[in-house]
Amino acid sequence: MNFASDNWSGVHPEISERMLKESTGYAPAYGNSDLDKYIEHYFNEIFEREVAVFFVATGTAANALALASINKPGGVTFCHTESHMLDDECGAPEFFASGARLSPVEGTQGKISPENLVKEIERFPRDFIHAGQPMAVSITQATEIGTSYSIEEIKNISDVCKQHNIPLHMDGARFANALTFLNVTPSQLTWKAGIDILSFGATKNGCWCAEALIFMHPEQTNDFPYIRKRSGQLFSKTRFISSQFAAYFENDLWLRLAQHSNLMAQYLGDGIEKSADARLAWATESNEVFCIVRQLTAEKLQKQNVIFHQWNQPRAYPNLLSKDEVILRMVCSFETNQKMIDQFLQLIN
Amino acid sequence: MNFASDNWSGVHPEISERMLKESTGYAPAYGNSDLDKYIEHYFNEIFEREVAVFFVATGTAANALALASINKPGGVTFCHTESHMLDDECGAPEFFASGARLSPVEGTQGKISPENLVKEIERFPRDFIHAGQPMAVSITQATEIGTSYSIEEIKNISDVCKQHNIPLHMDGARFANALTFLNVTPSQLTWKAGIDILSFGATKNGCWCAEALIFMHPEQTNDFPYIRKRSGQLFSKTRFISSQFAAYFENDLWLRLAQHSNLMAQYLGDGIEKSADARLAWATESNEVFCIVRQLTAEKLQKQNVIFHQWNQPRAYPNLLSKDEVILRMVCSFETNQKMIDQFLQLIN
Amino acid sequence: MNFASDNWSGVHPEISERMLKESTGYAPAYGNSDLDKYIEHYFNEIFEREVAVFFVATGTAANALALASINKPGGVTFCHTESHMLDDECGAPEFFASGARLSPVEGTQGKISPENLVKEIERFPRDFIHAGQPMAVSITQATEIGTSYSIEEIKNISDVCKQHNIPLHMDGARFANALTFLNVTPSQLTWKAGIDILSFGATKNGCWCAEALIFMHPEQTNDFPYIRKRSGQLFSKTRFISSQFAAYFENDLWLRLAQHSNLMAQYLGDGIEKSADARLAWATESNEVFCIVRQLTAEKLQKQNVIFHQWNQPRAYPNLLSKDEVILRMVCSFETNQKMIDQFLQLIN
Amino acid sequence: MNFASDNWSGVHPEISERMLKESTGYAPAYGNSDLDKYIEHYFNEIFEREVAVFFVATGTAANALALASINKPGGVTFCHTESHMLDDECGAPEFFASGARLSPVEGTQGKISPENLVKEIERFPRDFIHAGQPMAVSITQATEIGTSYSIEEIKNISDVCKQHNIPLHMDGARFANALTFLNVTPSQLTWKAGIDILSFGATKNGCWCAEALIFMHPEQTNDFPYIRKRSGQLFSKTRFISSQFAAYFENDLWLRLAQHSNLMAQYLGDGIEKSADARLAWATESNEVFCIVRQLTAEKLQKQNVIFHQWNQPRAYPNLLSKDEVILRMVCSFETNQKMIDQFLQLIN
Repeated sequence: MNFASDNWSGVHPEISERMLKESTGYAPAYGNSDLDKYIEHYFNEIFEREVAVFFVATGTAANALALASINKPGGVTFCHTESHMLDDECGAPEFFASGARLSPVEGTQGKISPENLVKEIERFPRDFIHAGQPMAVSITQATEIGTSYSIEEIKNISDVCKQHNIPLHMDGARFANALTFLNVTPSQLTWKAGIDILSFGATKNGCWCAEALIFMHPEQTNDFPYIRKRSGQLFSKTRFISSQFAAYFENDLWLRLAQHSNLMAQYLGDGIEKSADARLAWATESNEVFCIVRQLTAEKLQKQNVIFHQWNQPRAYPNLLSKDEVILRMVCSFETNQKMIDQFLQLIN
Repeated sequence: MNFASDNWSGVHPEISERMLKESTGYAPAYGNSDLDKYIEHYFNEIFEREVAVFFVATGTAANALALASINKPGGVTFCHTESHMLDDECGAPEFFASGARLSPVEGTQGKISPENLVKEIERFPRDFIHAGQPMAVSITQATEIGTSYSIEEIKNISDVCKQHNIPLHMDGARFANALTFLNVTPSQLTWKAGIDILSFGATKNGCWCAEALIFMHPEQTNDFPYIRKRSGQLFSKTRFISSQFAAYFENDLWLRLAQHSNLMAQYLGDGIEKSADARLAWATESNEVFCIVRQLTAEKLQKQNVIFHQWNQPRAYPNLLSKDEVILRMVCSFETNQKMIDQFLQLIN
Repeated sequence: MNFASDNWSGVHPEISERMLKESTGYAPAYGNSDLDKYIEHYFNEIFEREVAVFFVATGTAANALALASINKPGGVTFCHTESHMLDDECGAPEFFASGARLSPVEGTQGKISPENLVKEIERFPRDFIHAGQPMAVSITQATEIGTSYSIEEIKNISDVCKQHNIPLHMDGARFANALTFLNVTPSQLTWKAGIDILSFGATKNGCWCAEALIFMHPEQTNDFPYIRKRSGQLFSKTRFISSQFAAYFENDLWLRLAQHSNLMAQYLGDGIEKSADARLAWATESNEVFCIVRQLTAEKLQKQNVIFHQWNQPRAYPNLLSKDEVILRMVCSFETNQKMIDQFLQLIN
Repeated sequence: MNFASDNWSGVHPEISERMLKESTGYAPAYGNSDLDKYIEHYFNEIFEREVAVFFVATGTAANALALASINKPGGVTFCHTESHMLDDECGAPEFFASGARLSPVEGTQGKISPENLVKEIERFPRDFIHAGQPMAVSITQATEIGTSYSIEEIKNISDVCKQHNIPLHMDGARFANALTFLNVTPSQLTWKAGIDILSFGATKNGCWCAEALIFMHPEQTNDFPYIRKRSGQLFSKTRFISSQFAAYFENDLWLRLAQHSNLMAQYLGDGIEKSADARLAWATESNEVFCIVRQLTAEKLQKQNVIFHQWNQPRAYPNLLSKDEVILRMVCSFETNQKMIDQFLQLIN
């Protein structure tokens, strides 16, 4: 019963077989093969506008290079207190943005609160050089705790960005999960709601290694090819990424995989809600389920080969846990099935 | 007749099939799978000592992070005037090493001359803070112009490094080609000859994307996991690299592929030497052949679908070309075959 | 009635006259004059041990280069939520430390609470690469809100640092004010209490421009001369700084100036406490007084040419102010006199 | 007989006395005093246009921040092989420009040759991402070997810059010396000849510490205040610099000091030319004289208390020296007088 992470899963057969198929013969390197070009243009269709697409190696690279591309001296990027950028990227965003700072913003549901965001931005009065200057806002969709920003919530944050003339970035490591949960289109979830730059993750949703940075304003990316190459992120045999995306998008595979993962998470969440031994920490709005159990229960589960990560109590929820309680993060992927969940549910009453 | 580059080739079937095979089921992410661990240890056997192995995304990343790991303020790394680091990495080495400089050293055969190296290092007298301080030497093996440093030549450079107490890095984007050309062991070609850090490239020799940084002194790499993660170079589903290496090393596939490429290059070179229309720029000592033809001949070949890169005249060879002559770089890979070469040779007299 | 800042004051005559005196004749540049050497050694006497001394241009430079000297990849430096490093240095610490992060720690009295410090450090478990790694703790003495850490309080923080094996830095922009307030020796206030690196500020205490970075462990500074030069912080005619320090230390001028400033602050604080219109925000423990008045009173004072800075409510004191109240920061310097304060006190009842 | 460097001299009395005079009373910090504003505007008059002026701590800082202000990813700045930027700034330009590279350009007379410049720039074809991109050209005026670019020579280099759409920076550590040697106006020597950014040095010409970065296009400097502050280069008591410039410009003191230094250098150069034991390495076109003597003569001079720096043979002059000959750099300043030179000349025949 493996709920450790969606990156512990392997690769969907349609994707790995497509890679195999594209592995023979010659093709121009560094993003210039026909397949590379095809995929680049395919993104335009998906987003219903011309976008600029750059493959990178990891989600951390995507986020960090997004900030590098809009870097300002003394710049400050506002992100959620428990965001991946702050907690799990070992300072990559600051490194690639020449030391530009990440500034935490509080909010419940794993989401930036627009009111708090305004307060934090106002700590940087225009022309008070000493403090530095606002540079960007970044939100994660789906969030690090498995919730999803509604379109309305994104627009509210985008409004603050526009008032302060700073771009809005979305860390979409689980973009497909939020997309299918909200049942909206990629354009609705991004530029129509005010997103300027998107880290488009596919690795967690059934690929080997397929991450792209999507700029909604291609005219602003003249320097980005240099930024990527200077970061050691320009692959030579780019077909190995394009071929993954080719299968990923074909017949809406990506949406089907995300729907499956979400459905499994709902099923798991429903089971937990009915249980006497466990309860949900908050709503399940993607493929991640956060479940509160007693420490003893957690240990029992581990002994019975349930694999999960224990999670830190979010700062916004100081009273969430009773003494002896812990939070388990349980992630569903394309490999998760109902039987596995039923097995797990039998272990809790 | 495609001689554009070894990174225009696809992937050897044994490698791509192994990837497919390893693509199912769960495995710990971020380098912690059994296969990851197996491959890490396999490198110890290959190098006949305990080494520290870190997968990265690209050869540029490997080189740049090598320098980052031994970074000094005001540091200067000495490399050949036409080295990949200087000409083809868009400043990545300097970026990752906080601005530490690359300083060009002249030498024929695409190799650093030890005498010139000493002269350049002596421009940085100890304690003359203004100039900065020597930080490393980097050599490319096989070189950018297809030659290979002999063991003796590496030792001569290593002697200079030891006298000045700076480490010696090897850019091994075509490590296997040099290894099999010289007919030596990996340990002889590296730490026994004085190499401290190796960029071990497998992508050009039949993989999709398989690059590793090998430290011969693992005790000096405590901070390196943070350096890699901070660089956006820590993959989640690392199996996708381990599985490539698994096939790469199995039954010496890597050596067989390199031997084949080298053999094809020798065959091509021999044909060129016999030709009236073309001549070799210098000796062929790996899988790259540099061929001098008249501009008109080059154009004719292109029209007949021979694909190659035109190459800059090295600074060390100011009188190499007669007027109207150009240099063609022709690269052989595991996909190159004798028939393809024969077809080409028929186009020149 | 100018209480804007101690850096709005000019220069004490003994200092400016000494500069004039040292302005003639030839002397070796870049820190090699006799006077430079004399001052360097003088610091050893002041700190009762061999220290390494480096002049720099500004307090921000001193703090930032302190971090650069102990920089780690993915490094995190813990400092107070309202510290100068976080609020007033435009990201210089992160810039010079290659993006290493500053992490805010809460605490009342403008001081890091050791309990909170432990909690924050524990967010970075050993070997959890993703989070990064603790790199340093920095405290400001006197603090940004005019309080001073006691020796005991410093030792408590130092104990945490030692447990986690990270160095402790002190931002001593107002070092002399804390020193004389606490009536201790420089050695007691620094290395005997566990301080490893000190930003020693003299500019605010009557100099033009005299800032030094003091390393208590000179054997760890081999690379620092390069760090400073690479930062554009190595002055040529260093006499202009040495001569300021020469006068500063002569006959304990520095202590007398700080005592005077502190005394004036006490006098001002006492007056405020007796006033009906104003009250102290917290204790006065250096040369800065923080005074709470109604907004209307603040405006009236400004009209009557009282110069001060309005201050943000510290995050640790969310309920400090009633509606319509504001905090005024009033700074005393060597130029402040009793008459000026009496004039001010007459304006509030 | 001290000819070591113009930064071994002290400070002209008119300047040090003006500092003393401005050292009393309160004034806004961080460049906001009346005197600061006055000096800022004075620069507009000097350059006959609106310029943006930023004080910094050192010439190295000025050069490095100039590049930081026009920084590009993968950027390459072209400067002379023996330029101060390359040889004497410990990598500061690369550090502040996030690793952007300095690329050496050969030329005689210490000057960039426009033909060589074109060749070097052409090594970076548009859109060949791997190589990086041209970012700037920097020339030193007067040069590091005491020559001065003519207006015509500057325009020729500027023409190349304009063709390639990159800005032209001038390192004016000895700007006043070149200006008075050429007998032109500041506007003729800079923007009218195509200079975009100027490092304006006054320290070597009789100040303590007075360096400014001058942007000829103030509308392009919106971010520069943040760049400077982030670099630890924003002084608090900026009066200490403004007061130096106030005296420096008053009654053309700066021009008189430079004329004197140049005149002394001419006198010294003339004496050397008449000598049997010594000869000039090249023409004297500022306040620096480069004199070739035999090693034995150099040693004799040192024993007789002549202070100078021995200089490296420029790469452009491989055959300049006979065996046993060395180059002496001898610098004149406002403190140099005829008597001192006569004393020296008596020591050589």
